[in-house]
Amino acid sequence: MQALQQLFKRIIQRVNINLRELDYDVDPYTKDLIPLDQMTKFYAFYGITPHHSLNFQFRHSNLAGSYFLGKCRTTNSILYKSDIRGDELKKKGDVYRCGKWEIPIQQDEGIDIKDSLLIKTLVHNYSHDPETPERFFISNTAAVHYANIHGSPTDGSFLGPFATVDLTTMNDCVIGSFSYVQAGEVNHLYVDPGTVWVRSPDNFNFLYRYPQEKLRRYIDFSAGSLPQGLLIDFVNDRKEAFQRIFDVVNIEPSVTVPGSASLDRYAVVKPKTQINENVLVSQRAYLQNAWLGKGANAQENCYIINSRLQGNNVTAHGAKIIEADLGKNVFVGFNSFLRGRPNGRLTIGKDCVIMPHTIIDIQEPLTIPDGHLVWGLVNDAADLEANSIALKTMASVSDHITRGSMHFEGHGGKFVTAFKERIHHILEANGAFYDGTQGEGHAQRNQNISFNTIQPYPEGDQQGLYPTILIKP
Amino acid sequence: MQALQQLFKRIIQRVNINLRELDYDVDPYTKDLIPLDQMTKFYAFYGITPHHSLNFQFRHSNLAGSYFLGKCRTTNSILYKSDIRGDELKKKGDVYRCGKWEIPIQQDEGIDIKDSLLIKTLVHNYSHDPETPERFFISNTAAVHYANIHGSPTDGSFLGPFATVDLTTMNDCVIGSFSYVQAGEVNHLYVDPGTVWVRSPDNFNFLYRYPQEKLRRYIDFSAGSLPQGLLIDFVNDRKEAFQRIFDVVNIEPSVTVPGSASLDRYAVVKPKTQINENVLVSQRAYLQNAWLGKGANAQENCYIINSRLQGNNVTAHGAKIIEADLGKNVFVGFNSFLRGRPNGRLTIGKDCVIMPHTIIDIQEPLTIPDGHLVWGLVNDAADLEANSIALKTMASVSDHITRGSMHFEGHGGKFVTAFKERIHHILEANGAFYDGTQGEGHAQRNQNISFNTIQPYPEGDQQGLYPTILIKP
Repeated sequence: MQALQQLFKRIIQRVNINLRELDYDVDPYTKDLIPLDQMTKFYAFYGITPHHSLNFQFRHSNLAGSYFLGKCRTTNSILYKSDIRGDELKKKGDVYRCGKWEIPIQQDEGIDIKDSLLIKTLVHNYSHDPETPERFFISNTAAVHYANIHGSPTDGSFLGPFATVDLTTMNDCVIGSFSYVQAGEVNHLYVDPGTVWVRSPDNFNFLYRYPQEKLRRYIDFSAGSLPQGLLIDFVNDRKEAFQRIFDVVNIEPSVTVPGSASLDRYAVVKPKTQINENVLVSQRAYLQNAWLGKGANAQENCYIINSRLQGNNVTAHGAKIIEADLGKNVFVGFNSFLRGRPNGRLTIGKDCVIMPHTIIDIQEPLTIPDGHLVWGLVNDAADLEANSIALKTMASVSDHITRGSMHFEGHGGKFVTAFKERIHHILEANGAFYDGTQGEGHAQRNQNISFNTIQPYPEGDQQGLYPTILIKP
Repeated sequence: MQALQQLFKRIIQRVNINLRELDYDVDPYTKDLIPLDQMTKFYAFYGITPHHSLNFQFRHSNLAGSYFLGKCRTTNSILYKSDIRGDELKKKGDVYRCGKWEIPIQQDEGIDIKDSLLIKTLVHNYSHDPETPERFFISNTAAVHYANIHGSPTDGSFLGPFATVDLTTMNDCVIGSFSYVQAGEVNHLYVDPGTVWVRSPDNFNFLYRYPQEKLRRYIDFSAGSLPQGLLIDFVNDRKEAFQRIFDVVNIEPSVTVPGSASLDRYAVVKPKTQINENVLVSQRAYLQNAWLGKGANAQENCYIINSRLQGNNVTAHGAKIIEADLGKNVFVGFNSFLRGRPNGRLTIGKDCVIMPHTIIDIQEPLTIPDGHLVWGLVNDAADLEANSIALKTMASVSDHITRGSMHFEGHGGKFVTAFKERIHHILEANGAFYDGTQGEGHAQRNQNISFNTIQPYPEGDQQGLYPTILIKP
């Protein structure tokens, strides 16, 4: 266990050195987050398919409970129940376009995690930074419960619980709990908890900040204690269901899965769930009485309970949908928490965009009209009024707009178009538009994955560390 | 599946080319032995401990259901439910003594399997050939159900079901079903089924051959069909119990295991089994109402049912003991089948040596007196008379002796001593003499193994082949 303890200390020191300018000490925020003696208990696993680059390199790391797909490398790192999904990386021969540049991709892109601590963190998509087209690096970084590092090369940074960096290269930053940052490139920044920030230089800037007191009810993270709040309780209450699926080697799906859809064997599926054509259900998704229409997807760490999604819905990483009815083409962003009640259901009209990190938590029935953009904290109809706008109206903004605590500057049309294009891209990548011959995506390619399980040294000096493991075609 | 089919054909061709002088065609004996479409169904697994060299290299192979420990390499090979146990290999710094030679071991020895087909085969011990001290090779070889390749580098050979080569280097040989060969070095030999042959050049030569008609009742292997007979039926009848232990990730032992003993998590343990101090139970052992006294061991593919072993007993790879009572220090050799009946139990006195590949299958009670050597086929007291000898008498043979179908030439004392020393070594290696501080062996070192599971490509051209997997410290 000694080697593992030393590794943990080394990582924390490296993060702190990077954050010295911000005078941010990661130590009290990470100290007792994961019991090191449990790090030998959970197996890690990696997927093997003919549809993905295959190149795993694990060195001097602990990978307890983590999942890997594609081309990934970990060195001197601790990954606890994290998902490193390299199935959207760039491929040799691709051309990556960025502004006026056309960048030829010379070798398959790889995720390269070094000197980092990732706890229940999701890493996905490709590195959107044109400066590092073939290496999606995460180094000298600590990320804790349900953080998302999405297409975002990251160095020397700390991500709090439920924090997301999306299509953003980050150096020496602290991203507070439940903050969402999509900003291209950020350096030496401290982002307050509950910030939702979408920036496209020269095009637009969207900024919302949660009322801190109200946010704390949902997620509270203080030095010296574990993350707390309603979001953590919600997840912990459903932990046991996952235990069972990790304890057996083979598992038969409890529902019918159409030939064009895929249900990961590490997803939880409770009764009365229906999976339709072209649906993608990822590992660590939780479905209970969920009706998923054609082309809908349920990504990692998402929960869909007593809800109906009409089709072509995106339920992004970590999103939760409870007692809700969603029309077609509704997008629910990262880590959003949408909770209706049995007698107060939430209805979301078609073509709505629920921004990442939105909380809609209602007691009375609430309906969001078709084609609206929603953000921030919504507990009732009045909140909805202050935290939403028709996409059509948004598209017509040419200079700036303020609504509730949201400030937007720039070109509304470009903002709406960027979202629509991205949603289209996500659905396309997931195989939502597959017609039986064309348009194959994750839903079709991830149907048949072999999972290999790996474990650390069970005792001795190296206890808790994994041996060097190299997998190639 | 195509690549796997080609690999299968390639291996068979290589074996046949090696056996061309013997004019032996392996093809009809291997053709339908393993359904290739099942080769994606079973995971392989390897053990990680701080007590064994760690170096696995798997390339262009199928490893369905096979187990690996220590330093092993497979290339262009198909291993179906085989056990490759590299926990008795020579280590860097060892000195290997052979006659007048003292051979320094320059690097950890490794098991190197190339262009070979191994079906339910056990590979164990170290290469006893002084010509290849650091490389225990198995190449251009096919071995079928329950063959043992024990300390025997093997090239260009075929081993029938339940055949064993022990401490013997073999080139271009065919070893018939249920034959046991321990002969130092053999070349271009065809060994009839049911041959038990122990030779030490210049010292002794022990030879027994089973009556072919009677042997066929137990094991019958003809071109074009699967191995058949009572031994196969016996194993198949107990197959299902193993299914369950392979289907779950973690399993709690159903019996108390003393701190000095080890019970592999891939062993089957049925009720009323008792495991005492310093006992070793290996993977794929089957215990049912088995009482294992201090220092007893139950090796791979062995079955101990309704039996009591007093202590320091060796139950070698593939041995079966049913309705029997064994005194202390009884050795039961490879693949022996000892079956008493509920009303006709078998009693074996202390210090007996049951030769490898002995069948004792009785209807009436039978007692083997202390200190006897037993071989061949024993169905009743008359058979026992013809197939046993007091070790003391054997030790006094100075020229030759014939008893029943057994012929012995040479120095009986050396033969008995060699056996006794070997049994002592086996018990020592297994940790039977561990006193709490000294004498650690497998029983103490194998208590805490992490198992990693690996699987092949689930579809596509490479379906059934494993990717390249390299594991190092």
